[in-house]
Amino acid sequence: MHAIDLSVYLVLDPELCGGFQGMIDTALAAAQNRATVVQLRAPKWKKRALAECARELKARLAPLHVPLIINDHADVCAAVNADGLHIGQNDLTPADARAVIGGKRLLGLSVSNAKELEAVDVNLVDHLGIGPIYNTATKTDAAPQLGIEGFASLALRKPCPVVAIGSVKAAMAADLINAGADGLAVVSAICGQSDPGFATRELAKAVSEAKAAKAKFSCSSQIS
Amino acid sequence: MHAIDLSVYLVLDPELCGGFQGMIDTALAAAQNRATVVQLRAPKWKKRALAECARELKARLAPLHVPLIINDHADVCAAVNADGLHIGQNDLTPADARAVIGGKRLLGLSVSNAKELEAVDVNLVDHLGIGPIYNTATKTDAAPQLGIEGFASLALRKPCPVVAIGSVKAAMAADLINAGADGLAVVSAICGQSDPGFATRELAKAVSEAKAAKAKFSCSSQIS
Repeated sequence: MHAIDLSVYLVLDPELCGGFQGMIDTALAAAQNRATVVQLRAPKWKKRALAECARELKARLAPLHVPLIINDHADVCAAVNADGLHIGQNDLTPADARAVIGGKRLLGLSVSNAKELEAVDVNLVDHLGIGPIYNTATKTDAAPQLGIEGFASLALRKPCPVVAIGSVKAAMAADLINAGADGLAVVSAICGQSDPGFATRELAKAVSEAKAAKAKFSCSSQIS
Repeated sequence: MHAIDLSVYLVLDPELCGGFQGMIDTALAAAQNRATVVQLRAPKWKKRALAECARELKARLAPLHVPLIINDHADVCAAVNADGLHIGQNDLTPADARAVIGGKRLLGLSVSNAKELEAVDVNLVDHLGIGPIYNTATKTDAAPQLGIEGFASLALRKPCPVVAIGSVKAAMAADLINAGADGLAVVSAICGQSDPGFATRELAKAVSEAKAAKAKFSCSSQIS
């Protein structure tokens, strides 16, 4: 298992960011303002452009020690030497994905219900994206929304670290962290915002405050 | 470089074949009737289904010694242990694709003009698909049609074996083989035909007759 800080997990969107250069700029602004992970997701793009964008992101993010995750395409992940791959339930199986990317990269998996959660093999998968918390326009093929309570009931049984995803905003940080999230994955809370760096700092602040409050509460509980 | 018989190269189409089982049935009928290569191409499919279909095809085709080529997805190719990968100019670069699939699998590349042909690196690429000979409904993002003469002018300078592709029919076999094709790649000449096995035999017959006539002519030329 590979440990990374999932606190502020940015998923890039080419439309919201304004194309190739917009994604680079957004990723850089976020990484310089406490984003802890960046995922490249461009389902409509051909692989030549995707690999080119991924290489540019990797070169920019590596000096900032922010891992780059590639959505869906294990071949692009391996070719550009990205830090990890994120797959959904209709993408390669975790076993197939792991065979292609090797044992050292991160493998994340999207989970939307209890059945999918129970099937998770932590020998293959490093972390989960649980969602959608709420319906979202940036992923039209998403499962029904879980809400905070639905997320909490899944996160309670998490076999590995999880991020909450799906219309997630800074204002939900306390609820989601308390419900078991190790971080917040966002698209439109950063991509397309007038100041993506500021938006990222606000998210990071909300997550770290929520984690501090939870740790304090947990500590008090243990003492009492 | 890997040598295979490119004579009758079937490219499966999920719509024309009628989905998953239709592609299996069409591939099997073709392979039992002198098809020499089968390519799985389903650009709208997610990878879970693609890999499942590829594994089934591989299991059916291997006993018939017909190689299975995967279109575009190097990760699926590697995961299911297919015999090769076929890429276009907007897919992974040949170098990236080769890095993912390794040195032992076949790598084919689509080429549509002289510039793309000149850029071919035969240290990476095993064979080419040159086309489209004529415009086709099965590939909407294809380059302008070459016609037989346009194909001939490219095939004349081929650095490795080539198949002609794009609305290719058995009746064009003599012209295309004479123009330098090592085989004919077809979609709708087999997929969706009332008798795909019969259609494949007709193609195989046309190609082998064209190759025999060319060899004879070439031999006579050398003697005279």
